[in-house]
Amino acid sequence: MTKEPVQRNSGRSRIDRLRLFFPGLPADALLVTHLPNIRYLCGFTGSNALLYVESLSATLFTDSRYTIQAREEVSDAQISIAKHGLIKSLGNILARRPGRPRLGYEPSQLTVAQKDELQSAAGARIRWVAAPLGVEKLRAVKDASEQVLMRDAAALISKVWTEVVAGIKPGTAELAVAAEMEYAMKLQGASGPSFDSIVASGPRSALPHARPTSKLLKKNELLVLDQGAILRGYCSDMTRTVFLGHASARVRGLYQAVLEAKDTATAAIRPGIKAGEVDAAARKVLQRHKLGQYFTHSTGHGLGIEIHELPRLGKNEDIMLQEGMALTVEPGVYIQGLGGIRIEDEVLVTAKAAEVLTSATRKFLEL
Amino acid sequence: MTKEPVQRNSGRSRIDRLRLFFPGLPADALLVTHLPNIRYLCGFTGSNALLYVESLSATLFTDSRYTIQAREEVSDAQISIAKHGLIKSLGNILARRPGRPRLGYEPSQLTVAQKDELQSAAGARIRWVAAPLGVEKLRAVKDASEQVLMRDAAALISKVWTEVVAGIKPGTAELAVAAEMEYAMKLQGASGPSFDSIVASGPRSALPHARPTSKLLKKNELLVLDQGAILRGYCSDMTRTVFLGHASARVRGLYQAVLEAKDTATAAIRPGIKAGEVDAAARKVLQRHKLGQYFTHSTGHGLGIEIHELPRLGKNEDIMLQEGMALTVEPGVYIQGLGGIRIEDEVLVTAKAAEVLTSATRKFLEL
Repeated sequence: MTKEPVQRNSGRSRIDRLRLFFPGLPADALLVTHLPNIRYLCGFTGSNALLYVESLSATLFTDSRYTIQAREEVSDAQISIAKHGLIKSLGNILARRPGRPRLGYEPSQLTVAQKDELQSAAGARIRWVAAPLGVEKLRAVKDASEQVLMRDAAALISKVWTEVVAGIKPGTAELAVAAEMEYAMKLQGASGPSFDSIVASGPRSALPHARPTSKLLKKNELLVLDQGAILRGYCSDMTRTVFLGHASARVRGLYQAVLEAKDTATAAIRPGIKAGEVDAAARKVLQRHKLGQYFTHSTGHGLGIEIHELPRLGKNEDIMLQEGMALTVEPGVYIQGLGGIRIEDEVLVTAKAAEVLTSATRKFLEL
Repeated sequence: MTKEPVQRNSGRSRIDRLRLFFPGLPADALLVTHLPNIRYLCGFTGSNALLYVESLSATLFTDSRYTIQAREEVSDAQISIAKHGLIKSLGNILARRPGRPRLGYEPSQLTVAQKDELQSAAGARIRWVAAPLGVEKLRAVKDASEQVLMRDAAALISKVWTEVVAGIKPGTAELAVAAEMEYAMKLQGASGPSFDSIVASGPRSALPHARPTSKLLKKNELLVLDQGAILRGYCSDMTRTVFLGHASARVRGLYQAVLEAKDTATAAIRPGIKAGEVDAAARKVLQRHKLGQYFTHSTGHGLGIEIHELPRLGKNEDIMLQEGMALTVEPGVYIQGLGGIRIEDEVLVTAKAAEVLTSATRKFLEL
């Protein structure tokens, strides 16, 4: 892994942007325990770390396995190699701070064991301040260097999909197609898939989260292919639906309706619109085609270092889209007996609209 | 995924065995939040679940995405499909229990957010009882059905390794070898690798946790290949070291020393021995060869549903081995400039000794 830049265009470091939350909490320092957040803030990619951010300094705690790696990767923070546990090392620092420090923490990412251990190592002097989703909110808006990485990961999955699909034939197992897809990703430089690839054929395509099975692809079936790759730490995510053989007029009609829903939702995207309004735009198209009942999930989600990030493009979601957000747009219809159709692109919110990052054909392929 | 049996040979269900811990804590009920533990206890493999175990009943909480899957997979527990969050549903049940229930929980697997939410949903009536590692201790000893799964997963990785290594040539990138290995696993029925495959050549082989890179394999280099597969939910893990070309007498000598350390540690394994004694057995052999300083990690670890489980075969570990434990034995030496050699087999502790599960050749291959 190469060292990712952690500076924003503005020149303010990501850790400095996090410090802007301190007065509102209010907190004297923030404890970051979620590894993707740590990677985002200081660049460290190891599997054991804590990041402690004070107003004038920040310290990454890790263990001796990562001495060299931390030195190579970490920006904007000092490195502390903990001999007797990361929490204990941090506790020793907190125990020496004057007064009773107000420590911001992420309730859904700190375990009870970590909290208890830190409390006792610091001599019970901590005033705990819940600080939910602070880093996640920063991460939702991709900076210039991240936008490059998102574009590259999306280009990779588009290319891999196009190559693999050209070789798909009836008689191949769903699992073999998934294996082929993930193999091709790695050969193109991905560290791996960003989630277990979905390859769902025939009636199984009606299950939105179907795992690939040993079922063989057959003539006259729908085939949903949903996959993504992790490239230099950033996820991509794209779905296409194809048909093996010649599709009926009904299936072709369904495909066009889902595509229209996707295009309409994408066209609605711009800074200032609410996430729920984008979801409503997709839903409205499918309702007009009397398919509303078959669209059983939300329209999309943010993605980046993790495959699911803020915001969620779901019903009544109030969060406002901002320039720099990376989102999936992925309406679908799932009809028991007939099968499912989902079309998913990844987009980046620009100053005025959406830039579509995934580029594999959206024409209805009949293989 | 097929439904895994969750009964032990003895006929007592896994959940019943967990209940044996209640008096010692003491607790009236146990909350299980770690997904591998939930899978172990009741068979559920979905990504959102809580398991609540009382003395006479158990309830799995999940959401509406998993209605059908839960019905197909879950044994020994009722299913509750939560409409407004799993914790809230459980809280409503706890709120109706008489008195102040003593609730056992796993401190390192319960988040502060979950604890706070449950506390408030239950009307603050819970008496919290820390119950660390209860399920993990059960899981360390594999029952008959699990032993079958462990053998199958180990056989799969042995076969895949042997096939892929036959095709390895100088000029191939480390990443391509890793991709090939993981592709072959999936074609053989694995759901995926049990960890990111390690393919480390030349000087990079001296890094015990090297990630594969675009570096090409070269003549006259050591090559460490460490990989495992997940088959029907159970992990395997095997390492072999090969040489590209003809190795020097020194390298061949190092290989034999590591192999002797592995064989000696394996021969020491039997019920009643301490984990630390197995580690010491490997370490002693390498010290006798004046290689002790180059063996920088512990000798092995338990594995099963997760790639790292109890016990750890490390220095001074007091935990006693028991029949049914599944372990890796993986000594190695890492010499900067020269490279690294690690040989790892997976074993099952039997009534009197160790059964070796991984079967790829342990002869020093010069490719």
